[in-house]
Amino acid sequence: MRLRIRPVDTTFYDLFTESANHLVTGAALLAEMLAVGALHEDVARRMREAEHAADETTHAIVRRVNSVFVTPFDREDIYSLGSGLDDIMDLMDEVVDMILVYEVKVLPPELSDQVQVLQRCAELTAAAMPNLQSMKSLEEYWIEVNRLENEGDRNHRRILAMIFSGEFKAVEVLKLKDIVEALEAAIDGFERVANTIEQIALKES
Amino acid sequence: MRLRIRPVDTTFYDLFTESANHLVTGAALLAEMLAVGALHEDVARRMREAEHAADETTHAIVRRVNSVFVTPFDREDIYSLGSGLDDIMDLMDEVVDMILVYEVKVLPPELSDQVQVLQRCAELTAAAMPNLQSMKSLEEYWIEVNRLENEGDRNHRRILAMIFSGEFKAVEVLKLKDIVEALEAAIDGFERVANTIEQIALKES
Amino acid sequence: MRLRIRPVDTTFYDLFTESANHLVTGAALLAEMLAVGALHEDVARRMREAEHAADETTHAIVRRVNSVFVTPFDREDIYSLGSGLDDIMDLMDEVVDMILVYEVKVLPPELSDQVQVLQRCAELTAAAMPNLQSMKSLEEYWIEVNRLENEGDRNHRRILAMIFSGEFKAVEVLKLKDIVEALEAAIDGFERVANTIEQIALKES
Repeated sequence: MRLRIRPVDTTFYDLFTESANHLVTGAALLAEMLAVGALHEDVARRMREAEHAADETTHAIVRRVNSVFVTPFDREDIYSLGSGLDDIMDLMDEVVDMILVYEVKVLPPELSDQVQVLQRCAELTAAAMPNLQSMKSLEEYWIEVNRLENEGDRNHRRILAMIFSGEFKAVEVLKLKDIVEALEAAIDGFERVANTIEQIALKES
Repeated sequence: MRLRIRPVDTTFYDLFTESANHLVTGAALLAEMLAVGALHEDVARRMREAEHAADETTHAIVRRVNSVFVTPFDREDIYSLGSGLDDIMDLMDEVVDMILVYEVKVLPPELSDQVQVLQRCAELTAAAMPNLQSMKSLEEYWIEVNRLENEGDRNHRRILAMIFSGEFKAVEVLKLKDIVEALEAAIDGFERVANTIEQIALKES
Repeated sequence: MRLRIRPVDTTFYDLFTESANHLVTGAALLAEMLAVGALHEDVARRMREAEHAADETTHAIVRRVNSVFVTPFDREDIYSLGSGLDDIMDLMDEVVDMILVYEVKVLPPELSDQVQVLQRCAELTAAAMPNLQSMKSLEEYWIEVNRLENEGDRNHRRILAMIFSGEFKAVEVLKLKDIVEALEAAIDGFERVANTIEQIALKES
C-alpha cells in the first residue's frame, strides 16, 4: 500500500472541471452562432458572459495556487492546465467576435465540422477532469483528443483549400481564413491540454 | 517593524524605469509616423535607434539578473517584466516598419486613437516603475491601464469593422489589418506588464 | 584543474545533433519544393516524414530529461533547446504544406534567398551541437547565426515590399505573405536556438 503524503484537496479538480465545463458551453454557443438564421448579437453577448465566467474560474485557480501551501501536483503544471483551458475559451470567444465584427453573413457549412470536433473535445475534457484525482481512465481521453486533433487538422486543410479555391472574393478569404485559423487553434488548444495532463500523470506515476 | 532581509539594490528599478521610458519615446514616434506629411523614412530610422536603445536596457536587465546573487524579487518575475516591456517596443517598431515596407500612404485617422492609448499607457508605466521599490501607489496604475486596455479593445473592434466595411481594397485591408493588430497587441502588452507587476506586488505583500 | 562533478552523459548531445540534422534535411526539402517543376505532393510527403522523425527525436529528449537524475545542464534549458529546434521543423513543414494547400503555382524566385539562409543556419546549428559538451567554438556559431538572421530580415522586408508592390492579386498576396512570414519565423527560430545555447554557455562558464 502506497501511503498518501499529500492531504486530499479536491478544490483544484473541481475548479478544472468547472473550467472545462465553460468550454462545453462555449462550443455549444459556437454551434449556435454558425446555425442558419442565428441572432449573432445575442449569441455574442452570451459568449461574452461565458468567457467572463471562465475568467473567474481561471482567476480562482491562480489565486488558489498562489495561496495554498500544498498542491496536488506541481504549481507550474496547475498553472499550465488552468491557462491552457482559458486560452481555448478566448479562442472560441474570438471566433464569435470575428463573425460579428467582420459582419460575415454567409459561413461555409464546412466550418460546422470543426465546431463539432470542438464540442467533442470539450465534452471529453470535462469528463476527464474529475479523473485527475485518481489519474485513472485518462489514456482513452488522450488517445481520443489526439484522434480528434488529427481529424480537425484534415478538416482545416480541406477548408483552407476550399477558401482559396477562387470561389471567394479576397476580403472574404481574409475574413474566413482568420475564423478557420482560430477554430484550428482552439482544437490545438485541447491537444495541448491533453499533453499537459499526460505530463502530470507521468510525473505522478 | 518588519526587518528588511534583502539589501536595497535600486539598479533594477532604475533599469525598468529606463525601459519604460523607451516606450514613451516609441509611442511618441508612432504618433509622429501617423501625422499627415510625416517623413516616414526619417521617423523609421529614429524608431530603429529607440528600439536598439531599448534592447540595450533589456540586455542590461538580463545580464544583471544572471549575475547578482540577491534580487529584489523573483528572478523569473524580473525576466517577465523585462521581456514584457521589450515586447511592446518590438511591436511599436513593427508598426512603423510595416507602414514603411507596405508603403501605406493614407492611414485612417482612427489609428491615432490607438496611438493615444499607447502614449497614455507608456506614460503611466514609466511613472509606476519607480514605485516598484515601495510597492506603493500601484493600484491606480493597474486600474487605469486596464481601463485603457478596454478602451483600446473597443477602438480595435471599431477600426476592424471600418476596415472591413467595403471601403478599402483587399490589399489595403490586408496591410491595415496587420498594422491595427500590432497596435492592439502593443496595448495588450501594457496590460500584461501591469499584470506581472500585480503578481509581484501580491507575492511581496 | 577543475574537477567534473557531473558524470559525462553524451546522450543529450547526440539527440540535439540528431534534432539539428533533421533541420538540415528539412531545409533541403524546402529548397526542392521551391525549385521549378518540383513535384509538390511528393516533396510534401517526404517533409511530413522528416517532421515525424524530428518529433521522435524531440520526444526522446523530453522523455530523457524527465527520467534521468543528472542532466548535463538545467532541465529547462534542455527543454528550451529541444522545443526550439522542434519549432523550426514545424515551421519548415508549414511552409511546404501551405504551398500545397494554397495551390501556389508560381513562387517568386526571391523566396529561394530565404531558403538558402535557412540551409546555412541548419548546417551551422548541426555542426555546433557536438560542441555543447566542451562549450568550445560556439562563439563563431552565434555570430554567424546572428549575421544570417539579419540577412534574413533584410530579405524578408525586400520580399514583403515586392509582394505588396501591386504586381500580385490580393489572394496571391495573402498566400505569399503567409509563406514568407513562416520562412522568416523559421530563421528567427535559429536565432532563438543560438540565444538559448549562449545562455547555457554563460551559466556553465
